[in-house]
Formats: sequence, structure tokens, C-alpha cells
Amino acid sequence: MDALLRQIAAVVGDGNVLTGEAVTARRVDWLSGAPCQAGAIVRPGSTAELAEVMRLCHVARQPVVTHGGLTGLVHGAETAKDELAVSLERMTAIEDVDPIGATLTVQAGAPLQSVQEAAEAVDLQFALDLGARGSCTIGGNIATNAGGIRVIRYGMMRQQVLGLEAVLADGTVVSSMNHMLKNNAGFDLKQLFIGSEGTLGIVTRAVLHLQPPTSDMQTALVACPSFEAVTGLLAHLAQTLGGSLAAFEVMWQSHYRLLTEESSRHRPPLATDSPYYVILESLGNDPQSHAAQFGRALEGALESELVSDAVLAQSGSQRQALWDIREDIEGLLQALSPLFAFDISLPIPAMEGYVTRLEAALADDWPGARMVTFGHLGDGNLHISISTGSADPTTRRAVERLVYTPLAELGGSVSAEHGIGLEKRDYLALSRTPEEIGLMHTLKRALDPYGLLNRHKVLAPEAG
Amino acid sequence: MDALLRQIAAVVGDGNVLTGEAVTARRVDWLSGAPCQAGAIVRPGSTAELAEVMRLCHVARQPVVTHGGLTGLVHGAETAKDELAVSLERMTAIEDVDPIGATLTVQAGAPLQSVQEAAEAVDLQFALDLGARGSCTIGGNIATNAGGIRVIRYGMMRQQVLGLEAVLADGTVVSSMNHMLKNNAGFDLKQLFIGSEGTLGIVTRAVLHLQPPTSDMQTALVACPSFEAVTGLLAHLAQTLGGSLAAFEVMWQSHYRLLTEESSRHRPPLATDSPYYVILESLGNDPQSHAAQFGRALEGALESELVSDAVLAQSGSQRQALWDIREDIEGLLQALSPLFAFDISLPIPAMEGYVTRLEAALADDWPGARMVTFGHLGDGNLHISISTGSADPTTRRAVERLVYTPLAELGGSVSAEHGIGLEKRDYLALSRTPEEIGLMHTLKRALDPYGLLNRHKVLAPEAG
Repeated sequence: MDALLRQIAAVVGDGNVLTGEAVTARRVDWLSGAPCQAGAIVRPGSTAELAEVMRLCHVARQPVVTHGGLTGLVHGAETAKDELAVSLERMTAIEDVDPIGATLTVQAGAPLQSVQEAAEAVDLQFALDLGARGSCTIGGNIATNAGGIRVIRYGMMRQQVLGLEAVLADGTVVSSMNHMLKNNAGFDLKQLFIGSEGTLGIVTRAVLHLQPPTSDMQTALVACPSFEAVTGLLAHLAQTLGGSLAAFEVMWQSHYRLLTEESSRHRPPLATDSPYYVILESLGNDPQSHAAQFGRALEGALESELVSDAVLAQSGSQRQALWDIREDIEGLLQALSPLFAFDISLPIPAMEGYVTRLEAALADDWPGARMVTFGHLGDGNLHISISTGSADPTTRRAVERLVYTPLAELGGSVSAEHGIGLEKRDYLALSRTPEEIGLMHTLKRALDPYGLLNRHKVLAPEAG
Repeated sequence: MDALLRQIAAVVGDGNVLTGEAVTARRVDWLSGAPCQAGAIVRPGSTAELAEVMRLCHVARQPVVTHGGLTGLVHGAETAKDELAVSLERMTAIEDVDPIGATLTVQAGAPLQSVQEAAEAVDLQFALDLGARGSCTIGGNIATNAGGIRVIRYGMMRQQVLGLEAVLADGTVVSSMNHMLKNNAGFDLKQLFIGSEGTLGIVTRAVLHLQPPTSDMQTALVACPSFEAVTGLLAHLAQTLGGSLAAFEVMWQSHYRLLTEESSRHRPPLATDSPYYVILESLGNDPQSHAAQFGRALEGALESELVSDAVLAQSGSQRQALWDIREDIEGLLQALSPLFAFDISLPIPAMEGYVTRLEAALADDWPGARMVTFGHLGDGNLHISISTGSADPTTRRAVERLVYTPLAELGGSVSAEHGIGLEKRDYLALSRTPEEIGLMHTLKRALDPYGLLNRHKVLAPEAG
């Protein structure tokens, strides 16, 4: 690797090829804190530099792992000793903001939050939002098709991207920097790079679609008497709030009780005897009418008994207190550690039965086990935390099988928003047919014939 | 081809292999009325039958053109004597409607309108809409990534598709029938088949996302004093109406005058001396607040002089009268025939200058020429009609060059929503870089190595 690193240093500058302690000081996994093992970390300053780096790596058959903000949850940034890490950390420029066309052009290493702030500076908003906003990068958001809390209203990252530029495994720069909502001139190539976790190319720049800001926010916590009432409430709000419904976060009783009874941090805003609790949020553009509309929608839900009790946030701090319950990952960790956390999706009508059967199966195998569930229900997405008291790999595998196996029959997915990486690779076949996986391999071979980009991530090596 | 047709008839039945007059009686182009030239038309009744047909064609190296509703505008369905047409006309079943998950599962040959009606039957709506709804098929909508009049609110066809099934060139069935809004389990393969105009596979089934219906519709026609006012109005409405703005259709004065002064069909609802006219439509879910909100948004636009005059539709028939002006293709044809029609997109800030320069260039070359322009402006999409008095191919080429060439520098697209087909194939390089076109060829070779599917459409044969 040394000769190659000298060639690369001539491209990016000596100071931008990190080795030794400068490498191991970095954590590639914020949950485990595992140090980076890469042979070196290369920091190109431009697309042209990265293209030349990749050309050299291609000639040398050198495997490469792309690093963004390192906030992923599926070991997608793990880098072995014989691999190079390419970090986009020097490519953080916001190149252009067009308030008329509502577009923003940015380099892939820019943190999500800097894009949100640049949009706000021209009185617009960037719709994607997630907890890691200060660290995660736009390139990582694109590569993993990030989700977050407003998917029900604005869609995932895929829907925010109008155009992008990517460097292929051989150093070819594919610039597809479209600015328009409509462009049917040939294949929509950007789709290849969105959500393929860096295995088909390295995203270097993007054109993002901005949204108008919203001026009024209404938030409530409600209790529902049954799962049927939860889905009825979702339909009722879709009908009455239409485009403004922005969050529909369901806590199973297990989740709500854990964080309001056991954690000292939160007092329960509603009694804890209901089977389901939902945080509702609506974003409106006309304060005069929006609050009244939200109030009428809630009243209608109470009258038709979709909701048995409700509390409406009257201030920003009340709103925050409601969200704090749902977002208290620390409280969850304290109460349940060691725990296994899952991110899955399945058709909404199948959810109730799935959760009930999983709880029963878990209790059969680990009588003392605990399981708490919440979900971005409107998106089909559930987050499940399971604690058996053990963190050992054998237990983990056994629990994973309990969680993932039933999804195959239900048409569910082993990954709703976190991606596959290394962590879920061996379960991909539960959510994808052999023909789908075969086609993924066809694409991988066509774009990266030597398998240099994020080697063995997402797709296991082909047999033979 | 005869031996192959006998094999195929054994799969689909003799009655489903059409030849001779049954073929030439079909029109593959509704504008020109050109008859179908295919060697035969094959009508499979199921995905399994189509897969077997494609397997036979692959072994025989037989080129195939897929036929949906034959309503395309870029000669995508044109079929040569040595090609087979595969028509999805027997695969029209709506297989499932799930009102809780808001999904609809359908075979690709189903007409768009039947999907819209099936959604309405469960109190939901399918958001894509276009004039050809009674004839065009869901498979065609997917293959061409259809647009239409509500893209600004709901997106193009791509955004309506949750999952799909496709048959590859070799007969492999790739079933990717996802039902969830969130599914990051590996590459999102459906994106390959959406908008690639049948060149990478034949779409056979799809899972579509349904939307809540809207209960209140507000429509207005407004006059704007400048292009700056038009873009200011768009931003103002995005801010004040937010998610409910559903149409923002701009008529240049040329278009508005032609259809209100010259055509006997329409009286001008507003005086014809403004440079721009916009049809606005907003779809709300709360009649009590939505009309008031729309009224306030219009008042604000009048006060800030973004709008110089406005008329609000007070009834369904008044609304229809406004839309009739914008949609009067027949009046356009009568006044301008022979005409050349264009569907392009470009960044909104570049539009005014582009149209002005195009009008000047046209007047230079054809002093008597006429040009009228309207656009789904919020989507970056312009529809331009040009009449030079001649329909001959040399004139057509010359006009095409005037329209398309400036788009390269502006980052525009030679096709906003109609696709490339054969008609725009030779202009693709104006909107796509050599690297993009190279990657499209890479995908085509990987998925259809013998080039059997919609041969030479979208992409020209590679040199050498």
C-alpha cells in the first residue's frame, strides 16, 4: 500500500493522507466506540482529486471505504487494515442557494445542519431532519437514503435529491446535477447512488430540493383504545389534515410505561393504562386557520372514540416535554441495557399481530425478557428494543432470528431506514428474493467489477 | 420468426398471437395515426406467460417492443417488421386495495382511470392524473415516469410507486412488490424500471401509494405584471398555502391571447394585456378553513402587486372554463397547424430569458413564425408550440435545434415528462454528459446484453 499512498499523497497533499494514530483515534461506530482500522485515511479536497485517487486505487485494485459523519448504525463505515478510508470531510462547501428555484447545491461532506441553516437563511427549509444533524453528512444521508421523523410529510432523503455527482470505482466522474422537478431525459441515474450505501459510487456533490417553511406547529399526545383505533386515527388525520400531518409516532404501552413510570425524567402526561399512545404533529402555513383545523381534527377523533384521551401542547416547552418521552434513548438504555435495537418495516395491517407474536415468542425463550416498541407508524417503520439480560453474540443471533424471520412472510423489511451495511447483510434474503439479490449483484459487477467500493457491505461475496 | 411464434402460441394461446391486419389495424402513434408494423403482437395473460415468452425471445435473440396504452408522444411504441410487440392488454386486474396501508396492487395493463376509480371506492385517491387517463396504462405511466398536472403537490409517477415486478430480457422475474414507505434493504431496484421506457425490463405489476382525498378545491386565474412577479407569486403561495398548492400553470401572453382572442371557444376572463397569466389551484381538507386561507393568500398577492388582476372560480363550471383555456389543445392545433410541440424543462430563474431569446431567434429565421408558451412552472416544465407554416422534416430539425441547443448551457432538459423514445434520442447528449450516457449504456448492457428490449430507443446504438 505504501507506493500507492505516495502516489495519492502527490494528489491530495501529504497532510491529507492520515496514518497510524491519526487513524485509530477515529471511531467508526459511535455505539461501540470501535477505533478505525484503515490502512490510511485519505482526504481529497475536490471531486477532481477524488477521481484521481480512485483511478489510482482502481489500477492498484485497492479497496476503499467512504467515510461521512460516521453516525451510521449498521457498521457501514467499518474499514479493515488492507482498506483505505476516503473521508469527504474537506468537501463541505454550500456552493449555491437558489431561492426562486428552491434548490441548494452542496458538496457531500457538508453536515446536514449546515444545509438546514443555509436554507433557513433564504426563508426556506430543508425537510430532512434527524438526531445526528450536527455530525451526519449530506453524502451519508444520500448514500443511506436517510429517513427521520418527517417522512410521512416530506418523504425520505431520496425525495429531497434533484441531482448529484458521483465518482465511480474506476475514477469516472458522473455528473448528474439536475435542478428541475421534472427531467425525463434518459435513465434517472441518481437513483443508483441513493440508498446503495456507497457500494456503487462515491457521492461528491448534490442538488437538493428546498421546501417552504411552516409557520405554525401543533403537537399533541393522545391515547388510543386499540390498534384499530390507531390506524383509524391515522386515516382520520390524513383526511382532515391532509398535507400538513408531519409526525405520527406510536408508542406501545410498553414504551410509554417504561419511560414515564420507571425513568425519573418524565411525568406521564396521560394515564398509563391505554394500549397505545401517539404523538401527533401538524405543520401549517396559516396560523389563523391551522390551529383551528388541528383542534377540530382532534375533537372529531375524540367524538368517534378513536382517541380516549388527549393533551395538546400549549407552548414550546410543553411540546418538547412530549417529544422527550419518545426520544429518550438514554432512559431506554438505562432501563434495558444490555439491549438489542431493531429498525424494521412491515405493512401497517400486519403490525399488531407481528408485535404480539414477537412478544410471546420472546417470553417463551427468555421468560424475563423485556421488549418495548415504538414506530413511525405512518411509514410502516417500527423500532423495537429487546433486553434479555445478555449481550453475547449467540443471544443476539437468536433474538435477531425471532425479530427478522417473520418479516419474510409478511412482506416486511429487515431495514426500514438504517440500511444493511455489515450488520444486516446475512438477513437481506429475508426481505429480498433471489432474483432481486441477483440483480443487485449484476449492478455491482457492472459498476464496480473488482468490488473495490465498500467491499462486502450490503451484498455478501458471491459464491464461486 | 414463424417457428418462434408457434412456440409463443403454445404459451399464450393461438388467439393471443396477432398477425396481419390485426396488427396493422392498431395505431402506434395517436398524433400521426401510423399503423403498427410489428411482425406480430403477443398478448400474455400473466407474468409467468410473459416470462416464458421473453425466455423464448432471448434464446432466439428476438427484439421486443412493449405496448401499453399507446398514448406516448415520442415514438416509444414504434415497432419494426422484424420486432415483436408485447401488449399488456390482458393484464388489467386490480389485485388488492388496502385502505389502512393506503396501497393498491395492480397489473401493469390496467388503465390509469381504473386505478383512480378503485382508490375512490375506498375513499382515497390516486394522485397521478393526465388527459389520457382512460387509455394510458399503469405500466406505461411507470415506464415513462409520467408527470401531469399535480406534480407540484404529489410528485411524478416515480413518487407513487412503492413496489413493482418486472420481467427482464432473459425472462427472469424480478418481484420487488414492497408495500412500505420505508424500506432500505439493499438497492431500490424499482428505480431502474421507472422512467427507463421499457429498455431495461417489462413492468408487469406494481404496488401504488394512495393519498387521502381532498374535500375542497379552490381555483383562480390571475394576471401577473412581470416574470419576477410570477416567481414571487409561486414563492408566496408555497409559503401561505404550503402543502395544498396543487397547480401553478403559467400561460405566456402569447398562449392566453391565442386561445381567448382567436379561438371562438373562450371569452377572456381577464383583459389580455398582461405578460403572464397563472391558473392556481389549491386542494384542501378542511372546507371551513381552506377557502378562507386561499382567499387571504390571493389578497396578499394583490396587495404586494405580485398579481394585477384575479378571478376566483365560484362554481365547478367556472373552474372548468378556466382550465379549458389552458387545456384547449384542439384550439391550439387549429390556430397554429402545422405546429411543432415541445416538452422541456429548465431552472426557473433561466426561463424568462430563454423564452425571450427563443422568440427572437425564431423571428430571425422565420419572420412569420408563431410561438406560444405555457408551463407547469413550479416543476420547471415548459410546453412550447411553434408554427413556421411548414411541417417538413428539415424545418422540424432546424426548429428542434433552436429549442434544444440553448438548454445544454442552462442545465435544462430536452424532455421534462414525455421521455426520449426515438423522437428525442439524437438530442439526449444536450441534456446528459458523455459519462452519464456511458453509464446508461453500462446498465443497458448489464440488464439486456443482446439489446432486445425497445431496441435503439432512448439510447442510440453504441459505435463500434
